[in-house]
Amino acid sequence: MRVLILGGDGYLGWPTALRFSARGHEVSVVDNFVRRRWVEGAGSDSLTPIRDLEQRIDAWAETSGDRIRSFVGSVEEGDFLDGVVAETRPEAVIHYGQQPSAPYSMASREKAVETQQANVIGNLNLLFAIRDHVPECHLVKLGTMGEYGQPNIDIEEGYIEIEHKGRKDTLPFPKLPASLYHCSKVHDSTNIHFACRTWGLRATDLNQGVVYGVETEETAGDERLVTRFDYDELFGTVLNRFCVQAVIGHPLTVYGSGGQTRGFLNIRDTLQCVELAVANPATAGEFRVYNQFTEQFSVMELAQLVKHAAEHLGYSVEIQHCDNPRVEKEEHYYNAIHTKLLDLGLEPTLLGEELVESVIHAIERHKARVIESAIDPHTRWNPAKSPAGQA
Amino acid sequence: MRVLILGGDGYLGWPTALRFSARGHEVSVVDNFVRRRWVEGAGSDSLTPIRDLEQRIDAWAETSGDRIRSFVGSVEEGDFLDGVVAETRPEAVIHYGQQPSAPYSMASREKAVETQQANVIGNLNLLFAIRDHVPECHLVKLGTMGEYGQPNIDIEEGYIEIEHKGRKDTLPFPKLPASLYHCSKVHDSTNIHFACRTWGLRATDLNQGVVYGVETEETAGDERLVTRFDYDELFGTVLNRFCVQAVIGHPLTVYGSGGQTRGFLNIRDTLQCVELAVANPATAGEFRVYNQFTEQFSVMELAQLVKHAAEHLGYSVEIQHCDNPRVEKEEHYYNAIHTKLLDLGLEPTLLGEELVESVIHAIERHKARVIESAIDPHTRWNPAKSPAGQA
Repeated sequence: MRVLILGGDGYLGWPTALRFSARGHEVSVVDNFVRRRWVEGAGSDSLTPIRDLEQRIDAWAETSGDRIRSFVGSVEEGDFLDGVVAETRPEAVIHYGQQPSAPYSMASREKAVETQQANVIGNLNLLFAIRDHVPECHLVKLGTMGEYGQPNIDIEEGYIEIEHKGRKDTLPFPKLPASLYHCSKVHDSTNIHFACRTWGLRATDLNQGVVYGVETEETAGDERLVTRFDYDELFGTVLNRFCVQAVIGHPLTVYGSGGQTRGFLNIRDTLQCVELAVANPATAGEFRVYNQFTEQFSVMELAQLVKHAAEHLGYSVEIQHCDNPRVEKEEHYYNAIHTKLLDLGLEPTLLGEELVESVIHAIERHKARVIESAIDPHTRWNPAKSPAGQA
Repeated sequence: MRVLILGGDGYLGWPTALRFSARGHEVSVVDNFVRRRWVEGAGSDSLTPIRDLEQRIDAWAETSGDRIRSFVGSVEEGDFLDGVVAETRPEAVIHYGQQPSAPYSMASREKAVETQQANVIGNLNLLFAIRDHVPECHLVKLGTMGEYGQPNIDIEEGYIEIEHKGRKDTLPFPKLPASLYHCSKVHDSTNIHFACRTWGLRATDLNQGVVYGVETEETAGDERLVTRFDYDELFGTVLNRFCVQAVIGHPLTVYGSGGQTRGFLNIRDTLQCVELAVANPATAGEFRVYNQFTEQFSVMELAQLVKHAAEHLGYSVEIQHCDNPRVEKEEHYYNAIHTKLLDLGLEPTLLGEELVESVIHAIERHKARVIESAIDPHTRWNPAKSPAGQA
């Protein structure tokens, strides 16, 4: 199958490219390396030393005998993206090519605008390119569980049947996004749903939980093939951050009480889910939404888990409750349904101490590369609200 | 009160500026005249001969003794808009400064991107400017009933209480926007709601129905003060278009069966509603949604009404069912609640033959200016679907 991956140089995009190439698909990737620049701009760097895209592609060709095609450019450039889609004629497009950080989107007006512009316009360009060149192509879009927020009812997968004043309809599940980045993902979902209804496109929105983990089947074992791993305030996800913090002796940075509950999944399961979505495409006109995570945890549960695992390996770990830089509920109801990918055959990689220990071991190899100044949170959701205890 | 009006040179923006100035408020307007260029670009022009903004402002100063301040620039320019808000320190901002045409947004990828970029980024810039300079300011944003689409349940005003699996929450009403323009308005609502939740801003989203009418109290009687009036395929609204068509002997262009039902209101009532919203501001942190229309009609009901009124004035009128250029339901349930503005004191100007006749008379004065080639619909929602009867 011809598969086009947008954001193919990223944390998830690169391992996804390898996975589809390993399965014998004809893989093309698009990237403009802006993620590398964003992380450097934040005074940080990938924990893992990652090669340039062309070097990675060469290494993969050497190892596997299969060559991944690459196109360097921005999805915001409509003519460029249109040309790539026209040339590669994908049967599936996997779209990761977006600004993925909630705190980055909250740091300033400029960064908020950059986030929504990159994400919304890039995705809109993609919808037109698919419509105009490959209308049968299946769009697999990375969404986020953060689109839903924390409603006081169970979160369904994309839609909810509502009975109201004696009438009934199944409608898009209401959204309470948690940052301007999360808002941009809601905008994308709205636009994709519209394109499916109006142009008959077929799409799957993967509302992903928080990802953790370093390695996948294809990236492990060859240091030239590793994917990036971020632990900084802006681009690091919570479990990855806690593991790095434990290794370098930094207190675990729990925001507020730590009662915030979210869905989580291993990076290996991200690949499984994307494979399952591509192997079972949406039908023409269908906008399908899957909640893509395997387990729910509170932030404090994760902190305790990392503390125990790291202490088992001889580290001494302190848990520190920081003033919460975000505006969010710290205690709330949370129950998100996530059966559709299980029904397709997802076999969850469950999180336990052993798994945390393996992440810690992977981090230890690059411990000397950690830039400690990039760890503490500085980006406040509401700059007008000074942290407790400050003037 | 200090009132800032974005899009103050437009169909609604200009009469709104006059109304608030007439009521003794200190009014500033922002516009970059792109609406004038869009309509010209579509090969059309305002039916009413409108003066340049500075000439209008001079004429109003001469008539009323009150001077409206003007700032020429785009809301997409964050620094410009930030400067205007910092300088004028508004207590209310009325935001009309957007690309307002559904068909324009569907005409091409470029126009879709232009629409979402202008609307979403402009509105985002405004939210930051309010947060940073006048966090107590009340944002009154023009939304649209088209955000909701045609669900099979009653449409509530912005929120709906959902009972689901034994739990309850009041959540944003699900949206099924009808074009990429309508999608942009949904995006704006999502961003504004987020800003209210996170920064404590106060906002009212006026989900307006389809507006019709030529004159308001302040624009009537002085030809230098008239507002624009569009009747072309892209920027004309349905009742205004039908009235122009009747006057020039063009068949009334009913799209498809004409069973499409929408909410409508007179431009005089738009001003009433905006005044009521400003006079009764939202509270800090509140994102309030009002459905702003006075009556529901199907397109065929409007065509019949215009036919009767025009025939009464001696015109001969034909109703023509065109192939529907839009992708939309032509027969559907529609019942939208609209009590909140009535509760604040809105006194509806109801539509009847007499009112249609007055619109027709206003049009007759400028009949010679009608550009007939701008009337027929050419922009198709789905270019891949050829019109019925064509190959």
